[in-house]
Amino acid sequence: MILPSYRDLEAAVKRTAPHIVQTPLLESALLNDYIGGRVLIKAEPLQKTGSFKFRGATNAIWNLPDEVTHVVAYSSGNHAAAVAAAAASRGMIATIIMPEDAPAMKIANTKAFGGQVVTYDRYKESRETIGAKLAKEQGATLIPPFEYLPVIAGQGTIGVEVSDWLKQQNVTPDQLICCTGGGGLLAGISIGIHHHFPDVTIIAAEPEGFDDFKRSLESGKRVSNDPNARSICDAIVTPTPGEMTFAINSQHVSQAVAVRDDDALNAIAVAWQYLKIVAEPGGAVALAAILAGKVDVRNKTTVVIVSGGNVDQDIFNRALNML
Amino acid sequence: MILPSYRDLEAAVKRTAPHIVQTPLLESALLNDYIGGRVLIKAEPLQKTGSFKFRGATNAIWNLPDEVTHVVAYSSGNHAAAVAAAAASRGMIATIIMPEDAPAMKIANTKAFGGQVVTYDRYKESRETIGAKLAKEQGATLIPPFEYLPVIAGQGTIGVEVSDWLKQQNVTPDQLICCTGGGGLLAGISIGIHHHFPDVTIIAAEPEGFDDFKRSLESGKRVSNDPNARSICDAIVTPTPGEMTFAINSQHVSQAVAVRDDDALNAIAVAWQYLKIVAEPGGAVALAAILAGKVDVRNKTTVVIVSGGNVDQDIFNRALNML
Repeated sequence: MILPSYRDLEAAVKRTAPHIVQTPLLESALLNDYIGGRVLIKAEPLQKTGSFKFRGATNAIWNLPDEVTHVVAYSSGNHAAAVAAAAASRGMIATIIMPEDAPAMKIANTKAFGGQVVTYDRYKESRETIGAKLAKEQGATLIPPFEYLPVIAGQGTIGVEVSDWLKQQNVTPDQLICCTGGGGLLAGISIGIHHHFPDVTIIAAEPEGFDDFKRSLESGKRVSNDPNARSICDAIVTPTPGEMTFAINSQHVSQAVAVRDDDALNAIAVAWQYLKIVAEPGGAVALAAILAGKVDVRNKTTVVIVSGGNVDQDIFNRALNML
Repeated sequence: MILPSYRDLEAAVKRTAPHIVQTPLLESALLNDYIGGRVLIKAEPLQKTGSFKFRGATNAIWNLPDEVTHVVAYSSGNHAAAVAAAAASRGMIATIIMPEDAPAMKIANTKAFGGQVVTYDRYKESRETIGAKLAKEQGATLIPPFEYLPVIAGQGTIGVEVSDWLKQQNVTPDQLICCTGGGGLLAGISIGIHHHFPDVTIIAAEPEGFDDFKRSLESGKRVSNDPNARSICDAIVTPTPGEMTFAINSQHVSQAVAVRDDDALNAIAVAWQYLKIVAEPGGAVALAAILAGKVDVRNKTTVVIVSGGNVDQDIFNRALNML
């Protein structure tokens, strides 16, 4: 098993630069006062297709040989839209396998970006099996959502951008909090940030009921979630950590915390009020971990990843009604 | 009357760099498809204090001599919060004169940033008179919202950032649309963008009933709005263009268009859905001008300024309910 190195991240930065948005690190004096520490928020809802997934998809797609004309991906939504859009940017066809209960906006966006959508039952069928079958039938190249070096390296461009910004501003962070589902974002960022700041404490955030990484980290081996668990954090309800991503994350991550759906909704409202960004539930769990008191941020400098903003209107209204 | 030059903008870029957010130019493939052209959106809701006003306030405050310890400003809200926060960043006291009907969030934010708030009736009293009186009584320095060279130059840093980004990406824009109230933002950006792209068509956007700049541009002299006009675009309901700003804008701006409140609400919803940013009504009128068909964007590259995001929850809910 070959794991990505910092050099892979540097190559990804170069490969993706013409396509991606260099998202800002946002800061709110009022939010800092409220939580009693300094929080710097990497705003990936502003990334093309509305989530960080466009980074990994772009790096993977533009890393393929010219002969490839058709790609396949399975995803709860954000990787779907990202692969569809990245494939379109290189003139490729994309077939996307999505759970039938994915947010309506995510299915609509994937189709709008040119993706051909196939739906499945996420609690009964295996998307990996469907993906492999479709890839074989159609002669297409599979772009996995996280167990794939170019995807992890692409997500890791966030770690490089954050580090560059911090060094420019002469800021040394104490800790970084990032959501995790399959673990590709967390793995890529961990490689990037620890290359520049080896002493930063990295903390993972998950939804309650989907704390497979937390339990895997504590037990030292990959464990799964209860298949009956449910959460509104649709972007990160993956059944178990990836093998590659866990090999990386178990080396870099100190601790994992789990937050309730209401904590995620509260974080969406806070992001709306103080940061002026639109966050989705799964994308907001790292911020939620701070607001729910799961991570001590007092008198510390904490980098927080808000990873996506593709949220349906009813969920967003529920969040604002908590204010 | 000394008007700002491009050199003043360059000095402002240098002076403000340690304090401000370099906001991204956002683009949505879906929005481009929908409107049939390429639209690049400068996302100033992501600026500190939630609007571009922090740029001008920061440039003005850090341009003052060390002896100044107390500043005064009058503002419908965004300049208020910006001056309060910029003054705090230099350890100065700020007294802010705000209309009593300003959005609750804006008054609360100004206080939270450390500003001492004094309210007045915007339809009966003159904020200029109150500001001059308070400045004299308290020995404080007045920071005007737009009729002040350092403020115009500070807002102009947006024009420099946009031009730098466009040149890096080898993009030549056809036109730029920007909201206008007093005209400081429009003036600063016009100087910045025309220095680099002299052929860009600059278009101003205003709320219906507050189209004083449109009528001033057409008649060649500054005219005022009906004092009985009302709009939800609280950030840009200034009674008349400034003398300095009109001298600049009448040279640079080709055309002005007016949009309805419902157009502004629709633009807020579109910014939420496609760009993942939170816009306020006044900050969204330039985008609204496109969506309402007031500016032809088909097969063109258009830069749009979304200038702020300090919106109360009831207005935001009204906007999302239009989707």
